[in-house]
Amino acid sequence: MLTTELSGNMMQRPLQIIDILRYAATRYPHQEIVTRRLEGDRHRYDYQACYQRTCQLAHGLNQLGIQPGERVASLAWNTYRHMELYYAVSGIGAVMHTVNPRLFEEQIAWILNHAESTWVFVDISFLAILEQIAPELKHVKGFIVMVDEDQMPDPKLNNLYNYETLLASNAPAYEWPDIDEQSAALLCYTSGTTGHPKGVLASHRAMVLHAQATMGKDMLALDEDTVLMPMVTMYHVAAWGAPYAAPLAGSKLVFSGDGTSGEVMSELIRQEQVSVGLGVPTIWLTLHNHLSESKQSIPTLKRVCVGGAASPLGLVKTYDQVYNVYWQPIWGMTETGPLVYSAPPTRDILTRTKEEQYRIQTTAGRPVFGSEARIVDLDNNPLPHDGETRGELQVRGHWIASQYFRNDDLTSFPGGWLATGDIAVIDPEGFMKVVDRKKDVIKSGGEWISSLDIENIASQHPAVNEACVIGVKHPKWDERPLLLIVPNAGKTIDETEIKDFLTGKIARWWMPDAILLVEQLPHTGTGKLLKTDLRTQYQNFLLENAS
Amino acid sequence: MLTTELSGNMMQRPLQIIDILRYAATRYPHQEIVTRRLEGDRHRYDYQACYQRTCQLAHGLNQLGIQPGERVASLAWNTYRHMELYYAVSGIGAVMHTVNPRLFEEQIAWILNHAESTWVFVDISFLAILEQIAPELKHVKGFIVMVDEDQMPDPKLNNLYNYETLLASNAPAYEWPDIDEQSAALLCYTSGTTGHPKGVLASHRAMVLHAQATMGKDMLALDEDTVLMPMVTMYHVAAWGAPYAAPLAGSKLVFSGDGTSGEVMSELIRQEQVSVGLGVPTIWLTLHNHLSESKQSIPTLKRVCVGGAASPLGLVKTYDQVYNVYWQPIWGMTETGPLVYSAPPTRDILTRTKEEQYRIQTTAGRPVFGSEARIVDLDNNPLPHDGETRGELQVRGHWIASQYFRNDDLTSFPGGWLATGDIAVIDPEGFMKVVDRKKDVIKSGGEWISSLDIENIASQHPAVNEACVIGVKHPKWDERPLLLIVPNAGKTIDETEIKDFLTGKIARWWMPDAILLVEQLPHTGTGKLLKTDLRTQYQNFLLENAS
Ligand SMILES: Nc1ncnc2c1ncn2[C@@H]1O[C@H](COP(=O)(O)OP(=O)(O)OP(=O)(O)O)[C@@H](O)[C@H]1O
Ligand SMILES: Nc1ncnc2c1ncn2[C@@H]1O[C@H](COP(=O)(O)OP(=O)(O)OP(=O)(O)O)[C@@H](O)[C@H]1O
Ligand SMILES: [Mg+2]
Ligand SMILES: [Mg+2]
Repeated sequence: MLTTELSGNMMQRPLQIIDILRYAATRYPHQEIVTRRLEGDRHRYDYQACYQRTCQLAHGLNQLGIQPGERVASLAWNTYRHMELYYAVSGIGAVMHTVNPRLFEEQIAWILNHAESTWVFVDISFLAILEQIAPELKHVKGFIVMVDEDQMPDPKLNNLYNYETLLASNAPAYEWPDIDEQSAALLCYTSGTTGHPKGVLASHRAMVLHAQATMGKDMLALDEDTVLMPMVTMYHVAAWGAPYAAPLAGSKLVFSGDGTSGEVMSELIRQEQVSVGLGVPTIWLTLHNHLSESKQSIPTLKRVCVGGAASPLGLVKTYDQVYNVYWQPIWGMTETGPLVYSAPPTRDILTRTKEEQYRIQTTAGRPVFGSEARIVDLDNNPLPHDGETRGELQVRGHWIASQYFRNDDLTSFPGGWLATGDIAVIDPEGFMKVVDRKKDVIKSGGEWISSLDIENIASQHPAVNEACVIGVKHPKWDERPLLLIVPNAGKTIDETEIKDFLTGKIARWWMPDAILLVEQLPHTGTGKLLKTDLRTQYQNFLLENAS
Repeated sequence: MLTTELSGNMMQRPLQIIDILRYAATRYPHQEIVTRRLEGDRHRYDYQACYQRTCQLAHGLNQLGIQPGERVASLAWNTYRHMELYYAVSGIGAVMHTVNPRLFEEQIAWILNHAESTWVFVDISFLAILEQIAPELKHVKGFIVMVDEDQMPDPKLNNLYNYETLLASNAPAYEWPDIDEQSAALLCYTSGTTGHPKGVLASHRAMVLHAQATMGKDMLALDEDTVLMPMVTMYHVAAWGAPYAAPLAGSKLVFSGDGTSGEVMSELIRQEQVSVGLGVPTIWLTLHNHLSESKQSIPTLKRVCVGGAASPLGLVKTYDQVYNVYWQPIWGMTETGPLVYSAPPTRDILTRTKEEQYRIQTTAGRPVFGSEARIVDLDNNPLPHDGETRGELQVRGHWIASQYFRNDDLTSFPGGWLATGDIAVIDPEGFMKVVDRKKDVIKSGGEWISSLDIENIASQHPAVNEACVIGVKHPKWDERPLLLIVPNAGKTIDETEIKDFLTGKIARWWMPDAILLVEQLPHTGTGKLLKTDLRTQYQNFLLENAS
């Protein structure tokens, strides 16, 4: 790093998270935050009220004795209370530690101990998990249930408090300290798709710069007229930053609480006039399945912003042709803010041919300013962005992790870059496409087969609801692809039909050696295909069913 | 500042200026930069070519021996070469020092010496200034003329080089160093409206954060479809950051070279399909005067973004009603990036009544995220934002100066804020309006009269081209207002007519004691009324012309 002797004569103001909510409370005081509550009703208030309750909560956190740097955990759905917690915890200089309740109980206990979290804010639906693991928690001092006072459950845990009681008598104003922008603000663990979850500890600076990029025209392109419904959970990578980006942009926020069904989504979209959705592909598959059964329409929805997994061409087309909704691809990971790549609907893209448009929508898009990306070979040498060469994707930037929390293993962080574990191609325009995970790629006779490519094509068959390709053992080629298919409700389909469909669309030697119909596929808590499990289950399939 | 023991585990990437151009060269390689050249022709190239020439120039700067931290000056118009210089100088870690050639020669020499600038890049039109002051320049090692090689003038200065020669044989790629984001990047001196120019030294961090805010939806709202013509000069507060914000947004840039006439602007707007203009009110008055004489139209223009002085209601209305152009107010000063306040055309504003819309357009707008503002009384106590109370405007934020360059006087920087010297009111929605400069306010019998308010109203009279109110000596009231008017071409007007027009629109005791018709009013190099000069000239007017 070049340090010149001459520094600018500029004010040293920190980039800090609480400033986002302060800004929203002043500039968009009456913009709404709507929550489908676990209590059963729909809660509505505005940024001004949200800010005031956040101040009340900050006093409450002080009353609990929470110190700067301390980790405060949550096991909670997307709600206004969870949002207040985000801002109050980071605002007093403590660290918001969002825990994914969908993980195994042992993993949750391990994570809470690893983080040394001292207080846990919990939704009533996840209380049972804590009751189960409480004896193992080494650092937790108490639990705060995020529910109305009159619905507090019988205490089965020591030191159980009510969230509303904690706020009740406090002042709706707070003297927020200025916080060094490098201070930790948010702790999230990865999904555990490829192994044990690892902690990513983000700073105030990283989250503010990420929020600015996220709301900007090259990422989610939010503004005062946007009604944003994040269907990605606040317990996983901060709902992709929605609780920070939406107030910064002045957007209306719609929180679905514990609702993840197609019916809940479709109802909220219609009743709250949702214009932009945020979530993994399976969520939009769920919504589509519901809409086609219920024959309902979602006229206000303009865009779904979709990441966490590759965008299947079938769904991209369906959303365009059936719903007139732009499917906006996103790429990110827990280690990267998470948002880095996207392809919002610019005039440039919308004026291309439909075919070209769909091609772009099934890439991951292009990186926003503030991050840089490249693909490299096994020796970390940069590879060309020619749309053909495959390499491991590396990224760096303001909101990218430089190491895992309390973890000395730096193998994922070579030379100032993050090695993502994703195998990708980048085309000359900069559009990147993940072709596989390094761990999922199929090594057939020394060559690589991309499981994602085959999945994408198979998913376009009208009878296919979801497709999954894994590499399984083969006596001659080491590994060969096995294709698992969940058919659409009420549809049947046979192996030859799928093979015919794939023929000519993939290289001949990529053709799966077997195709199996299954009722469902296993997913992680964040909606990703759990290929590790499937590989274990099917690893000997070809050996045992040799034709 | 609260420093917690726990820092985030995030990469430490600097916010640096060169990354903006690198981003544009990759993401918008073929977006255009068009320049009306001093050589007489129109030059066109794209961000990719701009980046390549910037690399060539960086090698050239190394060949001149320029070191990190060194100040490199320019006396130049808005051109692609000046833009290359901005990026190359800051990119190698040196400081881009833009000098306003409209200042007096003594001031220019004083500024170059004060900054200890070592090399001066100069447009042919300003060479004579340097020839004049060269003997006084204590630190300058040489001059580079920004002109085609075959148009180099006869050398009257020692160490005179040609810009194109400096670039010619160098490689179009450069290994930019990572630069500490607090390093100085840009040095600008104030307009000298209220006294001697003072230097403001901005850091890389400040300019990148400013660029992001500037391109964002709450400030200039630029995107790939914008064609931006900055009519504010690159020699004054970096053309309000346009050379940074436009590439970040992927906008087409139109540089008018030495052209400032209505004819040049109108031609460029039509031929280059300019959609957004940037400049002080007088520039848009000039354009309007030209258009109404020449009967030409400017159909592509959607917005003019106007700061540096209050927005006169007359022009706001004219641009709306005659040209269908949204007049977007901006407030800023050299010390503040410069952009802080604005009111872009959101749906919220456009759906209000016309009257309310115009009211907002004649405020300065609201502050963008990254800056904070308040009004205070003489003891620095915050005053209410009630739309009535007047106080001095104070601002703070990421791109606000904390002191002047090489200047120990901190009186303008009380308690971490910048005291702007502007007297303002802020309404409950946050819209701020400058009612006067602290030095221009008229103290009549112990009460304040706002010169800007009267000017605004007077400017709406159909026969008035420009209006200026100053406080002049009065035997009984200390000071009383004097109104100077430049009538529209071919129009006449008398004192009673104006008085009638003002009656009922201003407080009775604000009525100017005298109204004078003048042929023109003096402006600073950046288009502001030079009231200091007028006050000197007219100070005894009422005493000598007592009625
Ligand atoms: N647009 C996309 N296309 C393809 N894959 C994507 C896309 N966006 C995200 N992904 C996948 O999701 C991953 C990031 O997911 P996340 O951080 O939630 O945890 P995980 O990687 O699934 O879990 P773990 O790291 O614990 O194994 C990326 O590395 C990538 O493989
Ligand atoms: N929207 C606006 N309304 C009213 N006044 C404005 C507006 N925008 C800018 N100004 C005026 O311009 C000033 C900033 O101008 P600039 O930094 O170019 O130098 P200057 O203040 O004119 O010169 P100096 O500081 O040397 O006297 C502000 O302080 C303010 O008085
Ligand atoms: Mg991962
Ligand atoms: Mg000033």
